[in-house]
Amino acid sequence: MLDDLEKFTKLKRRTRGAINIDPLQRGGILTPEAKEAVLEWADGYSICDFCTGAMDKIQNPPIKSFVHDALPEFLDIDEVRITHGAREGIFAAMHALCERGSCVVADGNAHYTTILAAELAGLKVEQTPVGGEPEYKVDPQGYNKTIEDVRSRGEKVDLAVLTYPDGNYGNLVDAKKVAQICHDLDVDLLLNGAYSVGRMDLSARDLGVDVIVGSGHKSMASCGPIGVLGATEECAKTIFRRSKLVPDKELELLGCTLRGAGILSMMASFPHVVERTKLWDDEVEKARWFASQIEPFGILLQGERPHNHDLMFFKSEVLYEISKTARKGRYFLYRELKKRKIFGIKPGLTRQFKLSTYLLSREDLQTVVDGLEEIIASYTRA
Amino acid sequence: MLDDLEKFTKLKRRTRGAINIDPLQRGGILTPEAKEAVLEWADGYSICDFCTGAMDKIQNPPIKSFVHDALPEFLDIDEVRITHGAREGIFAAMHALCERGSCVVADGNAHYTTILAAELAGLKVEQTPVGGEPEYKVDPQGYNKTIEDVRSRGEKVDLAVLTYPDGNYGNLVDAKKVAQICHDLDVDLLLNGAYSVGRMDLSARDLGVDVIVGSGHKSMASCGPIGVLGATEECAKTIFRRSKLVPDKELELLGCTLRGAGILSMMASFPHVVERTKLWDDEVEKARWFASQIEPFGILLQGERPHNHDLMFFKSEVLYEISKTARKGRYFLYRELKKRKIFGIKPGLTRQFKLSTYLLSREDLQTVVDGLEEIIASYTRA
Repeated sequence: MLDDLEKFTKLKRRTRGAINIDPLQRGGILTPEAKEAVLEWADGYSICDFCTGAMDKIQNPPIKSFVHDALPEFLDIDEVRITHGAREGIFAAMHALCERGSCVVADGNAHYTTILAAELAGLKVEQTPVGGEPEYKVDPQGYNKTIEDVRSRGEKVDLAVLTYPDGNYGNLVDAKKVAQICHDLDVDLLLNGAYSVGRMDLSARDLGVDVIVGSGHKSMASCGPIGVLGATEECAKTIFRRSKLVPDKELELLGCTLRGAGILSMMASFPHVVERTKLWDDEVEKARWFASQIEPFGILLQGERPHNHDLMFFKSEVLYEISKTARKGRYFLYRELKKRKIFGIKPGLTRQFKLSTYLLSREDLQTVVDGLEEIIASYTRA
Repeated sequence: MLDDLEKFTKLKRRTRGAINIDPLQRGGILTPEAKEAVLEWADGYSICDFCTGAMDKIQNPPIKSFVHDALPEFLDIDEVRITHGAREGIFAAMHALCERGSCVVADGNAHYTTILAAELAGLKVEQTPVGGEPEYKVDPQGYNKTIEDVRSRGEKVDLAVLTYPDGNYGNLVDAKKVAQICHDLDVDLLLNGAYSVGRMDLSARDLGVDVIVGSGHKSMASCGPIGVLGATEECAKTIFRRSKLVPDKELELLGCTLRGAGILSMMASFPHVVERTKLWDDEVEKARWFASQIEPFGILLQGERPHNHDLMFFKSEVLYEISKTARKGRYFLYRELKKRKIFGIKPGLTRQFKLSTYLLSREDLQTVVDGLEEIIASYTRA
């Protein structure tokens, strides 16, 4: 048996060369430097040639300086470690900081992985209210109410989480205000920056958050899985505590996390990532422009207005109506976009979908605008 | 601030082109096919172009068939999932299968990550006895005694772990016998195959183990971090249970684990990996030959005899004596080997060290033998 194994080799990515508007993928496209790094360090445990006991202490290549100097400065927080991704960072923080059976309060727009992480850590989750359509806003005061509610039924709140921005609407809640509210209630705040760390210029210290996670493959031009987990000195003491049984190893991340190319790809992309966060305002500007171009076709931006992130959620009754009679039904949009070498809206979606304009040129975005206009016009005529 | 970031880019691996005898790295060297795959799929979330809700269900590229058909057949076990590595697989299994506060019984030679995983999962660990030097053998009967001992003090044993082979001496304990003993005592057995899955032709079913973990970056020619976690149907029900709060996601692995090139590198190397496991006897033969060549110099193989694995632990009073007076002291061996383009014995070690002969040619191994002979001769003369 175990025949026909060649089908697992020489696989090409079908979307190569296309305009990719998938929010999940826009911030994870590697720089040329990162691609070189991946090839150079692709072998298993390649970074461990001169290991001195833990991944974050390796000096050649200069991982130690990256993890202990550059990343803390970049996130503006005391301590940082490398994780397998944002969700794994959230789990580590929850598992370390929260007592089993206690409750985590998360924003109503939290990513599903926040819920999974809490469940896996043996915690309950209570979410803050979300405002109605079309903005679906989370009011910072919701944390006040939700924390009090949980407490009033006799339960403990051990951590709050804010998804910044959320992965559905790209809404940016006032994190500073949330942090204040949480701290006034003596609750630490974790910021899920999967869509902001590596895109936006942000400071955990200025925002006042106690823990921050970021995603290398989502927003730091890295070959995943890889993420960052930053913490204030006080939280770091608990999250990055050493094992009692193997005293030279940090327990929560099982000793070492990354054992290969991913960390070198993050390092190689880092100068570019630092630079691009300074150009964030242009990205926001471009996102707003794009939305303004397609709204007249009946593709309507949801989430905050004015919008403050490249991740955007749209609703379109026009496209939905077309899908009811189009050949291929609800797959018509995917196929029409594919014809125009545009990928990233999930196959089968027409009535509502997410997309991102991040780091796409105005020319490419114009192609998307023109494509959508053409598609709607041609089906509406017919 | 955040200046001088260029030092994180264009980093070359210094050991490239050398003969690498590091046991950690021998089995993780990528095939040419895997290197191609890594480049093609290096971008973050690249494998998610046609996601249908979970990584292991993706059909294009054919991850679903790899995870649900090829890997279960390869490991000869009911269900398999992809993890971030062997240690993460061990943690997942322990966390899912064991009640907090209960005890895990592991072999006395278990890897430190087994201890960390148990500690992180809130479990106690009791290890079986290890025989004396030079073989440091673990007797399967030790499981009997250790499980009974733990129970006699009123504690619960929820899982047993066997490291196969252990990462220190490369000893292969009779796993079938251990499984029988554990099952007679109604304890499930997890096999840590970080150094065997991808090297040796093995069948979880034949060995009778309930859970098996393997490491992609250690033994499956993969770009890490990546591992495999296999389980019998019964254990899989618990380990791969779905979330109660997000019902379409598997809880223990937080939804999806790998979100990038690693899984494609494992797939691309898989035909080679399957083939190489059939040539395992030759690798054992070569390891024994190598040991027989250097023992006359006073570099003495520890662990089982005859030895059954490419991972070998040596003790050498000769090299230790030299280090006492050599220029550079205990770093002399590292430097002398480096001169000869041989890497993989940790800098500073002389009295005892590990190495591996895995997939090295006889010619390269002869170079290592000759190098060691020369080094000892030159320092002994002086």
